[in-house]
Amino acid sequence: MTTMNRQMVLASRPQGAVTVENFRLVEAPVPAPGEGEVLVKNEWLSLDPYMRGRMSDAKSYVPPAAIGAVMVGQTVGEVVESRHPGLRPGDKVLTSLGWQLYGTAKGKELTLIDASRIPASYYLGILGMPGITAWFGLFEIGEPKAGETVVVSAASGAVGSVVGQLAKSEGCRVVGIAGGRKKRDYVVNELGFDACIDYKAGKLLEELRAACPTGVDVYFENVGGEMLDMLLRVMNVHSRIVVCGLIAEYNATEPYGYKMMRSVLVNRIRMQGMIVFDWKERYGEALADLGARLSAGKLRYRESIVEGLENAPQGLIALLSGGNFGKQVVKLA
Amino acid sequence: MTTMNRQMVLASRPQGAVTVENFRLVEAPVPAPGEGEVLVKNEWLSLDPYMRGRMSDAKSYVPPAAIGAVMVGQTVGEVVESRHPGLRPGDKVLTSLGWQLYGTAKGKELTLIDASRIPASYYLGILGMPGITAWFGLFEIGEPKAGETVVVSAASGAVGSVVGQLAKSEGCRVVGIAGGRKKRDYVVNELGFDACIDYKAGKLLEELRAACPTGVDVYFENVGGEMLDMLLRVMNVHSRIVVCGLIAEYNATEPYGYKMMRSVLVNRIRMQGMIVFDWKERYGEALADLGARLSAGKLRYRESIVEGLENAPQGLIALLSGGNFGKQVVKLA
Repeated sequence: MTTMNRQMVLASRPQGAVTVENFRLVEAPVPAPGEGEVLVKNEWLSLDPYMRGRMSDAKSYVPPAAIGAVMVGQTVGEVVESRHPGLRPGDKVLTSLGWQLYGTAKGKELTLIDASRIPASYYLGILGMPGITAWFGLFEIGEPKAGETVVVSAASGAVGSVVGQLAKSEGCRVVGIAGGRKKRDYVVNELGFDACIDYKAGKLLEELRAACPTGVDVYFENVGGEMLDMLLRVMNVHSRIVVCGLIAEYNATEPYGYKMMRSVLVNRIRMQGMIVFDWKERYGEALADLGARLSAGKLRYRESIVEGLENAPQGLIALLSGGNFGKQVVKLA
Repeated sequence: MTTMNRQMVLASRPQGAVTVENFRLVEAPVPAPGEGEVLVKNEWLSLDPYMRGRMSDAKSYVPPAAIGAVMVGQTVGEVVESRHPGLRPGDKVLTSLGWQLYGTAKGKELTLIDASRIPASYYLGILGMPGITAWFGLFEIGEPKAGETVVVSAASGAVGSVVGQLAKSEGCRVVGIAGGRKKRDYVVNELGFDACIDYKAGKLLEELRAACPTGVDVYFENVGGEMLDMLLRVMNVHSRIVVCGLIAEYNATEPYGYKMMRSVLVNRIRMQGMIVFDWKERYGEALADLGARLSAGKLRYRESIVEGLENAPQGLIALLSGGNFGKQVVKLA
């Protein structure tokens, strides 16, 4: 019996919010690895906000996904057949094979991971792109100093949860913003933030002022839109804003009009966009530090798991609308 | 016969654009200097965009001017009576005495200037706050590198004209933005910019793309509003925006809604606000360099002169609406 591959392809580009109709599940033969390649059986697929950008054809830092192409994404999987001298069947690898059960890749483009001490899926989150993003964004752009106040939006998410814990370890007062009481409680009680504001309660500015009595020195932005405009009202002189994500804009058909730019001038704010790829040569630094903190039990981490490739679209939709909790992954096998 | 002092005071706060009715000319006795003070006869008054901010009571980096108070501003003048050991009648000094013909100040708060080789009024412009602003903003925040493209708005103004000339000397391609054909010609022909766009011609984006074929690496912003939004569309990856002024917003009753924030993320732009006071301890560095360039004939400079204190309000109104040319000063004596 021949095993078939299953792939989730982009069926159409979303107009506004992503819907399940934008995806199509297809079957295809399992490919055979060429010389220097390996065949990987994917076990975990990462879902990330940047995927929304790939579904659009607006200009971004990478080209959009093509209609009919397999959705892009990182996975961890197991090598099942190898024509590359450095990899053997049974090896666990980090790949960019996207939303499918099987795929072939050049052996040299894969990262061998050690899943004996740390769960394999963690390499998609806290020891993967989200963790590395948090690390470089906070330390290289945010530059928090002990005693300063750091605010993090999407605080219960894959990036935000790490940012806040790292800032806390630097001696900062750390305030999260998250949607809903459950997330808020998690951020304070489990992640150890000093405070967390439930933006859905509708009193963001008021609560920000109460939670940040000396103003905000570093704002790590994953959301954008009205939230960023609100934060611009409470930023301190010489504060920094790390623009890591603008998820509120991704699904919007019209861009948000930011009204508080004057604060950038008056408060001499440094606002800087970031994409983790810019530190590609230095990933090892971040991973070594994050791994050490994790092993020492100093970083809390939670995953939100969707079962099965067929449910990946709903997982992404939940992620984009704030419905998930922690790092969103799909269990494929 | 007793000489009377004349003072221009803030009569009311502007609603939108500044009008002459917001000012009132009053007479007062010439004050007598106290112990450690000197009496200064003002000769030149500087007019600057920041003054618009002082006329409002919106939160800014300094408190607003009070209704009925003498309008703030820098002047250069001559000491006419001294009770400070370091200053003698006839000395030329840089002061913060504001919009009036005479004033007393503590001797230690005044800066003695050498008006024998350089015109006294230059200490209000190219060798004063505007020149220092250009120097620190460009070099410390813009960080231009040879071969990069630098765009400067309000390019014919006191700050912009210096920014562009400094960037040119660093080996950059320098493109100005100015209002009207006369200013545009001045910026290219006299100041030596590579190109200048007349934004009043209504094709800013198109002309920007033509004048900056490899995109924009540094944008020195004095204007804001729609212009900044437009520039965000042509900024390069890892480019820098120096937010020095947002003059387009000062007179507006509603803040402009910036729609291109996404570009900050996608292009990893660093956007940073600046106020020259932040480099107070280092003014000497900038002044030494600017003075050397000026003496060597490497910096072109032009002033726009209004005659008489009674005409200062019209001078400020012209400055805020783009009607002036070069550094705006008022000749008081």
